[in-house]
Amino acid sequence: MGFLRTALKVMPPSAFRGFPRIPTAKIRAFSSVLSPPSKAVVYEQHGSPDQVTRVVNLSPVELKERDVCVKMLAAPINPSDINRIEGVYPVRPPVPAVGGYEGVGEVYAVGSAVRNLSIGDWVIPSPPSFGTWQNYIVKEESVWHKVIKDVPMEYAATVTVNPLTSLRLLEDFVKFNPGDAVVQNGATSIVGQCIIQLAKVQGIRSINIIRDRVGSEDVKEKLKSLGADVVFTESQLQVKNLKGLLDDIPEPLLGFNCVGGDAASVVLKFLRQGGTMVTYGGMAKKPVTMSTSSFIFKDLALRGFWLQKWMRTDKAQECRAMIDFLLGLMRDGKLKYEMQLVPFEEFGLALDRALGKLGSHPKQVLKF
Amino acid sequence: MGFLRTALKVMPPSAFRGFPRIPTAKIRAFSSVLSPPSKAVVYEQHGSPDQVTRVVNLSPVELKERDVCVKMLAAPINPSDINRIEGVYPVRPPVPAVGGYEGVGEVYAVGSAVRNLSIGDWVIPSPPSFGTWQNYIVKEESVWHKVIKDVPMEYAATVTVNPLTSLRLLEDFVKFNPGDAVVQNGATSIVGQCIIQLAKVQGIRSINIIRDRVGSEDVKEKLKSLGADVVFTESQLQVKNLKGLLDDIPEPLLGFNCVGGDAASVVLKFLRQGGTMVTYGGMAKKPVTMSTSSFIFKDLALRGFWLQKWMRTDKAQECRAMIDFLLGLMRDGKLKYEMQLVPFEEFGLALDRALGKLGSHPKQVLKF
Repeated sequence: MGFLRTALKVMPPSAFRGFPRIPTAKIRAFSSVLSPPSKAVVYEQHGSPDQVTRVVNLSPVELKERDVCVKMLAAPINPSDINRIEGVYPVRPPVPAVGGYEGVGEVYAVGSAVRNLSIGDWVIPSPPSFGTWQNYIVKEESVWHKVIKDVPMEYAATVTVNPLTSLRLLEDFVKFNPGDAVVQNGATSIVGQCIIQLAKVQGIRSINIIRDRVGSEDVKEKLKSLGADVVFTESQLQVKNLKGLLDDIPEPLLGFNCVGGDAASVVLKFLRQGGTMVTYGGMAKKPVTMSTSSFIFKDLALRGFWLQKWMRTDKAQECRAMIDFLLGLMRDGKLKYEMQLVPFEEFGLALDRALGKLGSHPKQVLKF
Repeated sequence: MGFLRTALKVMPPSAFRGFPRIPTAKIRAFSSVLSPPSKAVVYEQHGSPDQVTRVVNLSPVELKERDVCVKMLAAPINPSDINRIEGVYPVRPPVPAVGGYEGVGEVYAVGSAVRNLSIGDWVIPSPPSFGTWQNYIVKEESVWHKVIKDVPMEYAATVTVNPLTSLRLLEDFVKFNPGDAVVQNGATSIVGQCIIQLAKVQGIRSINIIRDRVGSEDVKEKLKSLGADVVFTESQLQVKNLKGLLDDIPEPLLGFNCVGGDAASVVLKFLRQGGTMVTYGGMAKKPVTMSTSSFIFKDLALRGFWLQKWMRTDKAQECRAMIDFLLGLMRDGKLKYEMQLVPFEEFGLALDRALGKLGSHPKQVLKF
């Protein structure tokens, strides 16, 4: 509590998102429900997350009549969360801020005018917003979306950032016919794994490219068990006739790139006349390069996708229906990926793993 | 005539487009109109145009009832004509073939069932087709489009390949609002000059990039006299704040690239959030490169345009209306560019100039 008082001195109340609001006399007149004390991962300046974040105690917040107090259950550490803290993301959250962007919680208390949520409901912020790395969040009813409870909490916690990206990548760029194919690099990423499974559900075939590494045969089998039609390592694709590798799979009309450099060029090579490649990540930190003749004579198009921008459009309701669709697939076992739950108390460990300081780990999901 | 007989031996009649058809008994029964003897620039194999082309005499052709015999007046030597002869164009015309793809001619004779064209009309092949480098062409009425006669013949001869490309580039990719801007490199090309003038007609402002060279100030003035709002040499753009150079011109939503490499990157830098760059040429023979963040966060899209593919769509009629629109602008002095008329007899000289063997020359247009 002592820390918080100090911290609050430097934080104008307007800068807080998901932070306790300071009760005013007016609000007191309408409500007397208080949120429990809470811990939160806060950063007061941008920088390396292991340097600038710390866990602070937040004092109770008084609920306004339309507010809902949510006890967080789980929230992931996504790469974009790290970029936001570093300040390298195009949207620079005003500091001080609470970390985290998506997650799931349970309704703990409701204001007197809340009609559509009840204590015990599972909810996610939708569209997602800053500040899910804390025990209790008080926000207006309208920002919360009630979700089904018959999926593991880590799936509800992670349904937006990665699976929804995969769904939009498949939906927003071309119109598929049955039996059409897509090609992607970075197929082992969670977005990549979701693309494989969502394509399968829609009857779309997938051509998947992975890095050469020890154990790539096991990775291939794993992706095939998810529904991948074919999986190639990059070195397998250093041939002249890529078509010859496809057997009965048609040349894809749509490709996805989350790597850049040569790995993007391979995706382009697979595409058929008039195809589109969508870039949604750049793991290799190399640009995308394409020849003039591919633009003119092969009529290929290059596009980009960013979920956060997409959600700024007037698609909030549509977005919630998609979330429900994805959670239904998760419940039915048709959409899965690996995660590692870590108690919130061990945030530092989870963060070090997410930062890659401790070797390779599955996605880290904080459990509150 | 001796040559032609020899040549014909190696050319199956089905391979000829715009070549004299060998009269058959059936056709004789319907018509007795013959085309005059003609000279044509023919190539029997792909290769360097100054090596593989020669002028041959073609014997008269008997007109079928729907045929029109056109006496060619003028036809340009376009870079794509050279590429077709070289065999490096994606559409490889079957050889032997007559060179040339667009041009204008005067109706010389008509078959008995021709209804909409009369002797003396000016016509262009629309959509264009192979074989305009010859004195007389006999083709069905339907392939010819009657054009106005109050423009210089060299404009009617060149209206399709370059000006129509410029028009489609401005029409097919984004929806403009009044006062919007476009940016282009290679602004001195004929397509570039037409973009400047067509943008002006539509109230769209143009940002133009030219190479650094001796006399670039004169080039700037020339482009400004056509309607260019601003003209920069590439070296002028090696600054951090491109916006600062634009004064009151808004950041462009659409860019055109006919160069590649760094010159394409500069176009991308000018574009505003959500903008599109269309590649329609690659004079520098270097690919286009774009960063991951430009795809994701700046939401830039890269596309290509090829007129020949566009004309393969069901737009032939629409295309003729556009040609008429462009010719109207030419008549009114709102669309102009430099050309050099060369007598057909001096085809070799015109070709050498078009191949760049004799320094810099305006577009070469054969005058028959």
